[in-house]
Order: sequence, then C-alpha cells, then structure tokens
Amino acid sequence: MPLTAQQLRQFVDEGYLFLPGCFSEAEVAILRDEAESIYATDRQEVWREKTGAPRTAFAAHTYNEAFRLLGSHPRLIRPVEQVFGEQLYMHQYKINAKAAFEGDVWQWHQDYGTWARDDGMPEPRAMNIAVFMDEVMAINGPLMLVPKSHKQGVLAAGHDVQTTSYPLWTLDNATVTRLVEEGGIVAPTGKPGSVLMFHGNLVHASAPNITPYPRRIVYLTLCAVSNYIRTPTRPEWIAHRDFNPIAPVADDALLNYARAAASKAAAE
Amino acid sequence: MPLTAQQLRQFVDEGYLFLPGCFSEAEVAILRDEAESIYATDRQEVWREKTGAPRTAFAAHTYNEAFRLLGSHPRLIRPVEQVFGEQLYMHQYKINAKAAFEGDVWQWHQDYGTWARDDGMPEPRAMNIAVFMDEVMAINGPLMLVPKSHKQGVLAAGHDVQTTSYPLWTLDNATVTRLVEEGGIVAPTGKPGSVLMFHGNLVHASAPNITPYPRRIVYLTLCAVSNYIRTPTRPEWIAHRDFNPIAPVADDALLNYARAAASKAAAE
Repeated sequence: MPLTAQQLRQFVDEGYLFLPGCFSEAEVAILRDEAESIYATDRQEVWREKTGAPRTAFAAHTYNEAFRLLGSHPRLIRPVEQVFGEQLYMHQYKINAKAAFEGDVWQWHQDYGTWARDDGMPEPRAMNIAVFMDEVMAINGPLMLVPKSHKQGVLAAGHDVQTTSYPLWTLDNATVTRLVEEGGIVAPTGKPGSVLMFHGNLVHASAPNITPYPRRIVYLTLCAVSNYIRTPTRPEWIAHRDFNPIAPVADDALLNYARAAASKAAAE
Repeated sequence: MPLTAQQLRQFVDEGYLFLPGCFSEAEVAILRDEAESIYATDRQEVWREKTGAPRTAFAAHTYNEAFRLLGSHPRLIRPVEQVFGEQLYMHQYKINAKAAFEGDVWQWHQDYGTWARDDGMPEPRAMNIAVFMDEVMAINGPLMLVPKSHKQGVLAAGHDVQTTSYPLWTLDNATVTRLVEEGGIVAPTGKPGSVLMFHGNLVHASAPNITPYPRRIVYLTLCAVSNYIRTPTRPEWIAHRDFNPIAPVADDALLNYARAAASKAAAE
C-alpha cells in the first residue's frame, strides 16, 4: 500500500514514519527463529556485546533465505522508493539483538554521518527501515528519535570506539540537548511486525535493555541507486558494494516461506 | 489524607502504591535547588558515577533544612505509619540524581536484602517512599518494579561491587525472569511531586538515563521503630543509628520554607 500524501508530509516534517502491523505473526516468528540460529554461529558478521551476548548480525540477506525475502519485501522497498523517487540498493543490513539483560546502549548519533564519513556516500538519500521482531516496549530499550533533527544536516561528531563494541560517530551532550529542546524525544512502541522508517540524518539512540524481554529489530539501510557509496573503508559485508537495484519479491513470499518451514518442521 | 482500604489492599497485593500530585511545584522547586547545592559539594555523603556526575547524596535531612522538613513530612510519614501500625525512624535518606546523559543503571535488587545483610534489620518492616523532583518519564530511567515480588521473602543475591559505584546485593537473571513471568514490570511515570511507596522486598531496578532530562528522586527509607537495626556495618550516615520516632512537622512547613526562601532571594 503506497504512503499517503499525509504520511509523506509527516516524513518530511518529522523525519520518521511509524507503520504498525506491517507483518503478520507468522512472518515475524520465522524471522525470530532464524535470527537465533544466526546469533548462535561464530561467523564474522555476528558482533557481540562486551558480555558475549549478540549485539548485531550483518548481511543476513546474503546467507539466509528468510532474511533475503525480507530484504526484498515490497512492504519495505516500495515506501522507500516512493520517498526517493528511484530504485534502491541495499547499503547495510543488520539484525540488532538488544538482548534481554545484556543489550547495551547505542549512543546518540545520525546514521548518515557514518555513511558519509566511513563509506563516502554522497547525499543523505538512504534511510533505515526497521522491522520489530519482538514487542518494543517503553522499558526494553526502544529506539528514541529526536523529531525534526534531520533538518540539521550532518552535525559534528566524535568517533566513539570505547563505550560499546560498535564504533560509532556520536554527538555531544550540548548538541543533543539543543535538538531535544526543539523537537522533543519520541520512542515508538508496538507489536512484532511493526515498521519504523527514519531519515538518515534523524538523531537517535537507545538505552540498554535490563529487562527479561528481548528487543530484536531488523534494519534495512536502503540507498537510492544513484547515491551509491564512492569511497568505502568498511568491509563489504558492512557497507555493501552490490549497487544493483532490488527487485521486490511477491507480497506473500515470506509468508509462503514461513508456511513451508512450519510444514517441514511438523513432518520431521 | 489517610490511605483508603482499597489502597492498603493494593499495597498488600502488589507491593507498591503510586500517589501522584502529593507535593506542589513550589515545594518541589526548592528541593531541586537545594539538591543541586548539595551535589556541588564534595562531602563524603555525595557519591558519584564513574563519570563524576552525582549519583546519590546521603543523609541530607541531617544537614539541609528543606530536606529535614521533607524527611518529617506528614504526607510521607503518616501513610507508612498506617501500613506498619507504629511510629517510624529514618533508616536511610538518599537523593538519587540519575543525571541527564550520565545516570547509570541500578541493577535488579530488593532493598531489604541489603538492610538485612549489611545492617542487621530483623524484619522487612521498613520501606522506601520516593518523591519525584523531576518528571519521571518512560525514557529517562524510571524505576521499574516487579509487582507481587515482595511475597518471595529475601531472595538469594550476589554482591555487585563492579557494575556501578554503589555496592548492591543483586539478583540473577533467572530469578528476575521467573518473577517477571509472574508479575510483569511496571514503571510508574508522573509529574514532579508524585510519590511512590514500595515494600522492602519488592524487586526493582532502573536503566541508565541517556536523555537530556534529569530524573532526581528523594528516597526516604522509613523503618518501624521496633525494627531498628541490630548489627550495622555501614557508616552511620548510610544506615542511621538514631532510632527515635519521627515527629511529623506541620503540613505547610515545607511550603512556608519555600516561600521564605523565595522572598529572601527576591530581596537580595
């Protein structure tokens, strides 16, 4: 279903859109199962917290069929194509765990700051679209967004390689305070299957998760094809070099995959 | 105003009571001002986060007039007297800062676990009553409570002296998971001046505060006089030795103090 004119306007004004109920429980359940299988491997794409709990798994669309289907899903690809007015390629793909009790902080940052500095992306014509695999609650480390902060361009940032296991270009407290005074903070919460898309320059963060409730989210970073990265410095499984446009799969492709997997499991 | 029969029943069942709007903005504003003055001193009662930001200030009722009046305030003393059926003394008094950007985690724990192990308190006939000095929001590190967990008695705990600057007897993840499956988690939020009282055995925690919004709370730990501590090991400014019953001040004592301070400031 295309975004409405009102939704497009809200995205321009606020820098984000929250779309509850995009995926069914059957579709999300298979993703949760496959994510756990991926976290259990010791491949280089799986990064861990300082405690050893999984923090994120990169590039799962390249080695897992369910996540491949999600990464080409029309419910995610079409709205972002609509915003950018052209076809998209996959710049980055992450399954963030924010594990129960151990999921650590993501400090305040803009994603495009990293894509520009580390990958040589010319313009902020890429964005994250997040799929909730668990219920995101106020208490289990929800993503916090600063509405309207995407209008600030790329803000000065420092390279934090200490706080967590993930190097990040983070903003200082004075900058965050100023932006929050203007735009406030929102922390969208919702059931598994909800989708959140936000501008590459929207300032965001998430607190540690100290509850028993895991908070797994898949992030597709979709980039306009013409805006491909020019001077990548990170490995290709973090900042992809396949700039071919994504051809969306059928709307029921992930559901059919989930059903087939369930039948196979029942037969075994 | 005495607690109603329904409130008393809820406390017995759930282990906590939330009482919004107990103190006026004028009463809370003077407390905020005085708390900042206290945090700015380098007295031994002020403990800091690993970053240097204030974490908590002990025993402020013994060296600050506004906090002395709060520590004897009938809106706090009377409800707790009602629950215990006898007079109270002040076992501990803390002004927790949970500073903007820097307020660190308090891991899952029961307070009475510490009072029993470290102070020799015979029974869980003491409780915390918290006064919100700032607005407590879902995003700035609210206190999280596990309803009904106070019925478990004292649970096994390990002495965490590493995670934060404050040594604490903390519960393991399996125990917290089991209790949350039974009782869930609540995180009461509200305006400055709201009050939260909870049983000494109620399991609770709070996540770090990574927002620009400070979340200062005063905690009075009120103990039934007959339940005085027998074998204290902590300094007397952490676990008090003055077991005399608290004589409540007049209901308008703090407000009059705030007005006098405002007049004095205006005249200067």
